Amino acid sequence: MRVEVINTGTELLLGNIVNTHLAFLAQELFPLGLRIGRQVTVPDGSAIRDALLESFDRAEVILVTGGLGPTTDDVTREITAELLGLKLAEDAAVLQAIAERFASRAIKLTERVKRQAQVPEGAVVLQNTNGTAPGLYLVHSKEGRTIHIFLLPGPPRELKPMFNEVVVPILKTLIPAGEVPECRSYRAVGIGESNVEALVGEQLLAIEGIELGYCARPGEVDVRVIGSRDVVERAETIILAHLKDCIVSQDSRSLEQVVVTGLIQRGETVAVAESCTGGFLANRITNVSGASEVFVEGFITYANEAKARALGIDPDVIKAHGAVSKEVAKAMAENARRLAGTDYALSTTGIAGPGGGTEEKPVGTVYIAFAAKNAETLVEKHRFPTDRENFKWLVTQTALDLLRKRLA
Amino acid sequence: MRVEVINTGTELLLGNIVNTHLAFLAQELFPLGLRIGRQVTVPDGSAIRDALLESFDRAEVILVTGGLGPTTDDVTREITAELLGLKLAEDAAVLQAIAERFASRAIKLTERVKRQAQVPEGAVVLQNTNGTAPGLYLVHSKEGRTIHIFLLPGPPRELKPMFNEVVVPILKTLIPAGEVPECRSYRAVGIGESNVEALVGEQLLAIEGIELGYCARPGEVDVRVIGSRDVVERAETIILAHLKDCIVSQDSRSLEQVVVTGLIQRGETVAVAESCTGGFLANRITNVSGASEVFVEGFITYANEAKARALGIDPDVIKAHGAVSKEVAKAMAENARRLAGTDYALSTTGIAGPGGGTEEKPVGTVYIAFAAKNAETLVEKHRFPTDRENFKWLVTQTALDLLRKRLA
Repeated sequence: MRVEVINTGTELLLGNIVNTHLAFLAQELFPLGLRIGRQVTVPDGSAIRDALLESFDRAEVILVTGGLGPTTDDVTREITAELLGLKLAEDAAVLQAIAERFASRAIKLTERVKRQAQVPEGAVVLQNTNGTAPGLYLVHSKEGRTIHIFLLPGPPRELKPMFNEVVVPILKTLIPAGEVPECRSYRAVGIGESNVEALVGEQLLAIEGIELGYCARPGEVDVRVIGSRDVVERAETIILAHLKDCIVSQDSRSLEQVVVTGLIQRGETVAVAESCTGGFLANRITNVSGASEVFVEGFITYANEAKARALGIDPDVIKAHGAVSKEVAKAMAENARRLAGTDYALSTTGIAGPGGGTEEKPVGTVYIAFAAKNAETLVEKHRFPTDRENFKWLVTQTALDLLRKRLA
Repeated sequence: MRVEVINTGTELLLGNIVNTHLAFLAQELFPLGLRIGRQVTVPDGSAIRDALLESFDRAEVILVTGGLGPTTDDVTREITAELLGLKLAEDAAVLQAIAERFASRAIKLTERVKRQAQVPEGAVVLQNTNGTAPGLYLVHSKEGRTIHIFLLPGPPRELKPMFNEVVVPILKTLIPAGEVPECRSYRAVGIGESNVEALVGEQLLAIEGIELGYCARPGEVDVRVIGSRDVVERAETIILAHLKDCIVSQDSRSLEQVVVTGLIQRGETVAVAESCTGGFLANRITNVSGASEVFVEGFITYANEAKARALGIDPDVIKAHGAVSKEVAKAMAENARRLAGTDYALSTTGIAGPGGGTEEKPVGTVYIAFAAKNAETLVEKHRFPTDRENFKWLVTQTALDLLRKRLA
């Protein structure tokens, strides 16, 4: 089935908002074996007419976002009904849902708002749990082809639950039985996309009927496998055999989620001592709900005096080896663990740039240490010559992975 | 001039990458008075043909991204030349630039790579300072209309400099003299979009010839004004009269950039003590290049024991008022400032959620304190009932703005 997406919204074409709908829809369609053949963005208003007419010629599934609201340039509902030759009528149940929503917020129901209760004849109403305008599902027939049209709300917090809870189940009924493939995803950390491909690519592609996708972000790669039950199981055997140590999660949980969950399960705690990452490591850990059970304290010792005062690092050690050194990284992790009284501690010290590099220690140089109770402290030296924020990302990715491996 | 954008790339339609090109191009075109009328995404390969033919019927400027690389599905150059009836020939200067780039990296020049030196006859070569494939500028005439076609590389770090340095100057020559408007942008913090609109919207729209745009993100609003010199100056008078205290920057500098720059100029320093923001405040400050001159230390005292040990908060105070209280926020900021020996300190303590809320202190409750040498400590109470990461954003936005106002 060919799928096309039409995003309406002047704000998208003015650059006020980045269009995240396309990537969201594509990722949700992927496990169903459905691919988007084309996407178009048109401004609010009548421009949707041409976009719909073009898609009618090519697509079996058309996903439209936006233009269902109460303002005068919200015309997706009206233009679609007109093109399909359908009359609009007020739907009592929809109107009641809108009226209740407004009553609960003590807002007056205007005629404009009531427009959202207009439903084209024969359309299926898709409930909106996070907003006023419902979605609509229409089936159109053109020259013997059946076209499934979904009109969906623009705001992401309305679109996403509606798509997952209502649209996906309908799409599944449209795919011939036995054709909904299995999909598995593996997140690998500490290995580049080309190395992942070199290790497993050829063997995976040798499995008949497999569909393989890589999605690389800095410091991590998702490997997605699609096919019959037999295909994905054969693929899993190959992936785990070659990438086991790098696999962080077999769903799409992030590295920090895996680490925090692991600590909670073991009833253990962690502290961090950060120089070059400047709080980003603590921030990633505390982004995970439940982190307060396991994260005790962060020492963001940016200045050398802070390293000495807060962490008790000997100023002579800093003078002898420099703040960016194996010795300082080791002492930071060990002292943080001892002071905070935790099971583990991670530390980072490096040169984020753009300034501060030397010939011996160029921009991007970093030492990462991992201290654990009753174990020798690990210190790794890396170099990530990139921009400041990406540097922080890669350093924290490496640090968190040291802890993950220990917890695994 | 009607502008249309064609983004090529199967990865965009698979959801592996979010399309940030459209928002980038729109924002750069905006100050020139140019608006994008439509955008389409097509997969790699021959699908670009139909997209180009459709745009030829409507647009005066067509911006195409992607498909200029060395692989077999990179066919933007070839298909455009074919549609315009132009022959391709190897360009000696382009080939030399590619050869030099490869030689400097000791990579072998293959026949595939050499394809990138093919240039349609009459095309202007747009230099690529960050990659191999140059951009191309072609002028096409259809039924008396002139169409300006720009073929641009897909990777953002190649596209962005090429667009700003080479394409924008060409576009400026296409706009009739006197029609390139002035554009000014004002970033306001601590005020919602609807309040900004209520304060200045009507007066601004009363200026004849003004084009007004709002761009709201959580905790900040950009107001963009476009028009003749006279128009933008009249607008600026109105904006500064009503929003002066909220205006963070009159360019697009972020709040943390403004704060760090302000501290550097005054030769002053800051420390932070964070509970609920868990390192995000330190992280935002240290994302700014040069932060090491002014940021001394962060105390990420997530657990109550850490607040007592690292910041010397009296456990009885925590017991009496709770960790999320005016008293604890105040002591955190004051003690952090004293311990780190800085001119200023900011502190945060609150309930990020989703758990941990009570009837008296529901999820989203936060106290933010600002301590300064020789001044009374400010403490503000806010409530931001939202998800964890957005909560952290809004809290740090409020905290940084307290420091900004002091430095202003």
